[in-house]
Amino acid sequence: MKIEKSIIDQHNQGLQERHQRAFDFVSSDVDNIDDILEKLQRFQIAIPSWALGTGGTRFGRFSGQGEPGSLEQKIEDVGLLHALNQSSGAISLHIPWDIPQNAEEIKALATSYGLKFDAMNSNTFQDQAGQAYSYKFGSLQHVDPNVRKQAVAHNIEVIKHGIALGSKALTVWLADGSSFPGQLNFREAFQNTLESLKEIYAHLPADWKLFVEYKAFEPNFYSTTIADWGQSLLLANKLGDKAYTLVDLGHHLPNANIEQIVSLLLMEGKLAGFHFNDSKYADDDLTAGAIRPYQLFLIFNELVDGMDVRGIDHATGLGWMIDASHNLKDPLADLLQSVEAIKIAYAQALLVDRTALKEAQQQNDVVRAQEILQQAYRTDVRAIVAESRLRSGAALDPIGLFRALDVRKKLIAERGMNSVATGL
Amino acid sequence: MKIEKSIIDQHNQGLQERHQRAFDFVSSDVDNIDDILEKLQRFQIAIPSWALGTGGTRFGRFSGQGEPGSLEQKIEDVGLLHALNQSSGAISLHIPWDIPQNAEEIKALATSYGLKFDAMNSNTFQDQAGQAYSYKFGSLQHVDPNVRKQAVAHNIEVIKHGIALGSKALTVWLADGSSFPGQLNFREAFQNTLESLKEIYAHLPADWKLFVEYKAFEPNFYSTTIADWGQSLLLANKLGDKAYTLVDLGHHLPNANIEQIVSLLLMEGKLAGFHFNDSKYADDDLTAGAIRPYQLFLIFNELVDGMDVRGIDHATGLGWMIDASHNLKDPLADLLQSVEAIKIAYAQALLVDRTALKEAQQQNDVVRAQEILQQAYRTDVRAIVAESRLRSGAALDPIGLFRALDVRKKLIAERGMNSVATGL
Amino acid sequence: MKIEKSIIDQHNQGLQERHQRAFDFVSSDVDNIDDILEKLQRFQIAIPSWALGTGGTRFGRFSGQGEPGSLEQKIEDVGLLHALNQSSGAISLHIPWDIPQNAEEIKALATSYGLKFDAMNSNTFQDQAGQAYSYKFGSLQHVDPNVRKQAVAHNIEVIKHGIALGSKALTVWLADGSSFPGQLNFREAFQNTLESLKEIYAHLPADWKLFVEYKAFEPNFYSTTIADWGQSLLLANKLGDKAYTLVDLGHHLPNANIEQIVSLLLMEGKLAGFHFNDSKYADDDLTAGAIRPYQLFLIFNELVDGMDVRGIDHATGLGWMIDASHNLKDPLADLLQSVEAIKIAYAQALLVDRTALKEAQQQNDVVRAQEILQQAYRTDVRAIVAESRLRSGAALDPIGLFRALDVRKKLIAERGMNSVATGL
Amino acid sequence: MKIEKSIIDQHNQGLQERHQRAFDFVSSDVDNIDDILEKLQRFQIAIPSWALGTGGTRFGRFSGQGEPGSLEQKIEDVGLLHALNQSSGAISLHIPWDIPQNAEEIKALATSYGLKFDAMNSNTFQDQAGQAYSYKFGSLQHVDPNVRKQAVAHNIEVIKHGIALGSKALTVWLADGSSFPGQLNFREAFQNTLESLKEIYAHLPADWKLFVEYKAFEPNFYSTTIADWGQSLLLANKLGDKAYTLVDLGHHLPNANIEQIVSLLLMEGKLAGFHFNDSKYADDDLTAGAIRPYQLFLIFNELVDGMDVRGIDHATGLGWMIDASHNLKDPLADLLQSVEAIKIAYAQALLVDRTALKEAQQQNDVVRAQEILQQAYRTDVRAIVAESRLRSGAALDPIGLFRALDVRKKLIAERGMNSVATGL
Repeated sequence: MKIEKSIIDQHNQGLQERHQRAFDFVSSDVDNIDDILEKLQRFQIAIPSWALGTGGTRFGRFSGQGEPGSLEQKIEDVGLLHALNQSSGAISLHIPWDIPQNAEEIKALATSYGLKFDAMNSNTFQDQAGQAYSYKFGSLQHVDPNVRKQAVAHNIEVIKHGIALGSKALTVWLADGSSFPGQLNFREAFQNTLESLKEIYAHLPADWKLFVEYKAFEPNFYSTTIADWGQSLLLANKLGDKAYTLVDLGHHLPNANIEQIVSLLLMEGKLAGFHFNDSKYADDDLTAGAIRPYQLFLIFNELVDGMDVRGIDHATGLGWMIDASHNLKDPLADLLQSVEAIKIAYAQALLVDRTALKEAQQQNDVVRAQEILQQAYRTDVRAIVAESRLRSGAALDPIGLFRALDVRKKLIAERGMNSVATGL
Repeated sequence: MKIEKSIIDQHNQGLQERHQRAFDFVSSDVDNIDDILEKLQRFQIAIPSWALGTGGTRFGRFSGQGEPGSLEQKIEDVGLLHALNQSSGAISLHIPWDIPQNAEEIKALATSYGLKFDAMNSNTFQDQAGQAYSYKFGSLQHVDPNVRKQAVAHNIEVIKHGIALGSKALTVWLADGSSFPGQLNFREAFQNTLESLKEIYAHLPADWKLFVEYKAFEPNFYSTTIADWGQSLLLANKLGDKAYTLVDLGHHLPNANIEQIVSLLLMEGKLAGFHFNDSKYADDDLTAGAIRPYQLFLIFNELVDGMDVRGIDHATGLGWMIDASHNLKDPLADLLQSVEAIKIAYAQALLVDRTALKEAQQQNDVVRAQEILQQAYRTDVRAIVAESRLRSGAALDPIGLFRALDVRKKLIAERGMNSVATGL
Repeated sequence: MKIEKSIIDQHNQGLQERHQRAFDFVSSDVDNIDDILEKLQRFQIAIPSWALGTGGTRFGRFSGQGEPGSLEQKIEDVGLLHALNQSSGAISLHIPWDIPQNAEEIKALATSYGLKFDAMNSNTFQDQAGQAYSYKFGSLQHVDPNVRKQAVAHNIEVIKHGIALGSKALTVWLADGSSFPGQLNFREAFQNTLESLKEIYAHLPADWKLFVEYKAFEPNFYSTTIADWGQSLLLANKLGDKAYTLVDLGHHLPNANIEQIVSLLLMEGKLAGFHFNDSKYADDDLTAGAIRPYQLFLIFNELVDGMDVRGIDHATGLGWMIDASHNLKDPLADLLQSVEAIKIAYAQALLVDRTALKEAQQQNDVVRAQEILQQAYRTDVRAIVAESRLRSGAALDPIGLFRALDVRKKLIAERGMNSVATGL
Repeated sequence: MKIEKSIIDQHNQGLQERHQRAFDFVSSDVDNIDDILEKLQRFQIAIPSWALGTGGTRFGRFSGQGEPGSLEQKIEDVGLLHALNQSSGAISLHIPWDIPQNAEEIKALATSYGLKFDAMNSNTFQDQAGQAYSYKFGSLQHVDPNVRKQAVAHNIEVIKHGIALGSKALTVWLADGSSFPGQLNFREAFQNTLESLKEIYAHLPADWKLFVEYKAFEPNFYSTTIADWGQSLLLANKLGDKAYTLVDLGHHLPNANIEQIVSLLLMEGKLAGFHFNDSKYADDDLTAGAIRPYQLFLIFNELVDGMDVRGIDHATGLGWMIDASHNLKDPLADLLQSVEAIKIAYAQALLVDRTALKEAQQQNDVVRAQEILQQAYRTDVRAIVAESRLRSGAALDPIGLFRALDVRKKLIAERGMNSVATGL
């Protein structure tokens, strides 16, 4: 299924008047509205290939329908999203779930949808059929050098796939850790992981980056070998200039001040980028902005400030990706909601009066500082985000159009009721 | 596989001298040692049928070997545990994973191992093949009365299976809840759940109990419809005298004072019993006592005190079950470790000088109160627990014997490498 | 200091044009805007007398200036707030910090500012000079009946003061609990508390309510005797129809779903009302809406829904109070920010399309349900809240006017640099 | 008050027989018992001068009696503890609460009790009378260079006092942070703090260490400028070889794996040492080992392993201090309980069979690894710790003797009922 431009235009025409009124109202107070719109247009959030199917928990999975049964169909799905919002212009692949049989053809297909290949993702947290060694007790951390070698080789393989597709980064997320006190020697696990990462790092092309992700817990329940930003940064610093720390919003202990971590990683020049999602309890992998939208705004507030201070291009300097699990909602609708929430937070952050904020901070005027952030956050920026879509040729109301077009019904008709996303 | 009494005796003989020395030392200070030993002997902890296979997380599962491939083999596994420790004299079945084809034969088999049938467990958190309605959006809480009816009927079916086997309780654990704000009307979800439970309750035999379990979160990530002890107790009170609140140690928010909850539920006469496990972060389902052994002791301290005050028989008054997930360890070895940890905590709680504690509390002597609890907790009671096993004909060192007998190897030989526990 | 109506009018005139444009924009989509405005006008949030001075932590306190040094000045302060926002028409007194020497005069003074007397607050968490028994080890829970009697007598005294002032409720917040395992017998502490509350309850006038507040921890660090909503509800049910459970937003374990608790308490007819504040880590007592504004909205979403279903008057049916600590900000400015945030959340909740939400829930359309809540939450309702102020004769921009009038400077001039709020 | 050696001896004689029996039993299985005893004898835990008075919370403080009213009396108090347990041979002073008027006399007094001067503590979290600038909005982080200069100068002053007393380390704990989003520029706060610390570092004598403490939250409630081990390590690395990260057990987010942090800091050669206490909810500052004794053991397990690998002397290589708040217990009794719990955990960690553990880890034998740790932890080592005291000339039962001697009564007689510890 492909959504033609004419469909989009027709949809937009119907909403135009109402949109214009809202946009005029909200933009009338914004001096640099064109700059903001341009930034919003350029800001693209990658979609991981595994997000296109229904997710689940250890207790079960309630499958969806018409899910993409091949890499080609996954690209088609992201193409649909991108046609609707012109904000999802990249796909992030997961190996071995998405091994391209013919990289050139896959690249051409992606290009036809206006998509690029974001960071590649390796998988050493599951055993694959026919695998020589098990990752039950870890991969890059493993006490057995054979397991580590196998995991390193897999990552190098992933890099190769990525080169063929034009990707420029490898994301390493490890499930390595332990579930019981005593199981692991923490230092040796760290050192083994470092040595393994060094070997992978040595195979990175010159223009690639290595994203070292951290996570507080799960699937191991006593320790995680890269458990927090401090451990990830320690590794990134020991690895070298191409290694960075990746922040996944759900990978923290309760109450963590993630925006401060983001700010400091930017200060150190070591922030890789983001895996967006939201959570109330643990790594719940909910729709971005569904639970703590103000925190999402505060993170973007730090991102905008920190990237500008360091001269980092908002659109291309860091990696932006959604990493949620779609257990109850249609994955495509859910991803549209996540992208919308992220762009709202970004737009609000762009509205922050940084000169006034700086001044309030210099005067320790806490009341005023709060007012300045709330002034931006309380502004209804949806018309600004919609206008940026309009200017990019996307839909004013992506979910509305998704519904009106009965997208899922058509995908089911094409793919069948029982098509299940590969890899899940 | 069956472990003969002669094997146990031989094992015990080899350890007897060392054991006797330790037991003599620790028991010399204990006035009521025989009373304690008798209580320990009578204290049986049920094993759930799903705990006999390797567990996993949403990220994957690393299968074990020689797992029980049928209900008969599950009973055999619990029989092995019980032979080793004489403390696991009951099995808790899960329907539909363990539907007995011939209840009488299954009962006879269990009896041959000295096992009873503990509480029955229903499952409305997964869809079964051929099921008319999906539980994707809940079961007893569902907005659609057809779904609720189906779930109620399933629970009634479970009661019937239980009657046939001689069980005396139904445990209802619901995954019902919501993952996003707005998804659910909390009050209606509660009322629907209450109505459904009332129908189930109406089908309980006169001598049965209904255990209403609560859980803070997961698999839903915004709300759980029976989320805490307060909600469970509200339901139990509205249902009637046969309804009780079941406590699973992993089902709480961070830092919850579980022992206080236990104490108050006992005060209200509404404590059903326990699902034992341990956790560091969330519902980690680790080996009992592996992370917070002092908390386990404090819980038993409240249990002993509260049961004695109300005249509840320790062994039979409440339900005791392990509910852990064995992702990394051999399930049988893991269960032996859990039972040992639970009995240690129980033994320590039996050692608490309650007269002195009462006195310290009356005087607000906080230093002394702490000393009294620590005096019991710091005592090495392993020889007491071992002696209770010895007197019951079990092994002095169950895990040691489990290893020496190469139990798993033999099970693999009997069942095959790839035998996977049904239901997981 | 008193702010004349003419000052307000002049201020409003200067902002009128801009306000009108914003109000016209946002209200054009709202059918029942007058109903909403009327509700907002009627909605009054009480200010506790202890919030008018600078708060602190156990590590220290950085005093403010020009703080109210008497009950009269506290009333004056609330009068200033109320003049600015016409939303803080009540003051909540704390005994013994605010014992009125002449109740009639105090009432007359309050009336002159348009203020009523909200719930009375007792204090058995601190020792007062000359007190016979210490509350070090609790008050209503205390093992010594003399202490309990003293604490009960104090509460009865507080009721008397409240009667004289026209208050209609007593809020009991207890610091009772324990800091170490063993210190307390949980059941006896609960029973003692219940007995003590019964005595207090017996002294309540017929038209009074008893608000039983709960708190998870602090100032005791192992157990709190009324620790959660379940324990408070248990007490309220045992006490009778005039007893209710009071929710303070900061008094929960990490990640608690407070909106669900609110919904269920309303269902049970036992919600007393709220102590508003916000927090990131523990009972941080920050400005309402400063950290989790979406949660505040979700709570109001449940409140509006639940009150309407039960026919509870929004303005008068429950108790609304701010309970924050103003450690860094000027208390008056901080309170204005809290009131604004609360009214924004309330206005957003009033905008929720409940018919559509109900429909989405009935269809398990999670995507739509989220959209409906976000549609209301993302709306910039500040002009609606401002309009409600305008119609009530308050300032369009209360904090702006507070600044422009240099209120604190004038209070310092009147009261002196070193005037410290009584009771802190 | 001074406890004569003869009193101790007499006390020990009465307990000797019972002790010997227990010690013989437990030590009979321990090959290197003399090595362990020697380590225990050498292991000294410093007492901070502020721990000798009754602590409190922001809600109040229930004063004790006979508290030390001068630095001399504080030294006397620690001398009492040391006489009782020979394990508290150092005092850690806090400036400005404990400015020695005559350093030589103070040193001589301390020496007379066998006490050394542990790390010095500065205070920039409170304002002192007559201070030019306020720390309300931070100290080393402050936007105003004058405030930073004042705070730096204070730290340099503290170093001078320390030099005079023979201390060898400065502990910097900052309350710096923010309570509201927007209040602070995180990067600038970090950079200001770093610059300030550099100036302090430049004034450190060659044989001194700088301990950089971190804390997740409180007294600021949105961000702390040195919030976690990662931030502290970042600072320590930028400062130089004499800077280390100090771990306070209560200064973490919920569920943090502190033992892993400890292990990694040792790996990096950057662990300063410990502030011991325990907690259930937040920074509760309870008696060490009172809530999570197994965690305390696991931390010591990492300490022993990590120190041995790096050749760090257990007694002198790192800093050991109690940092608890004694709100309900007599501070001296409470400190005796903390020291006992710490030494028990240390003794248990010394019992761990590291060869076997290593082997189990190499084989991923999780069951065995857990057994090995539990074997050590479940051993009742109290007689070993008591024997180490006996060999050092301390009391077999310090708290028992403390009670028998009516120490507090005598201190009240000497100092008066209302003597309150200076600084609190």
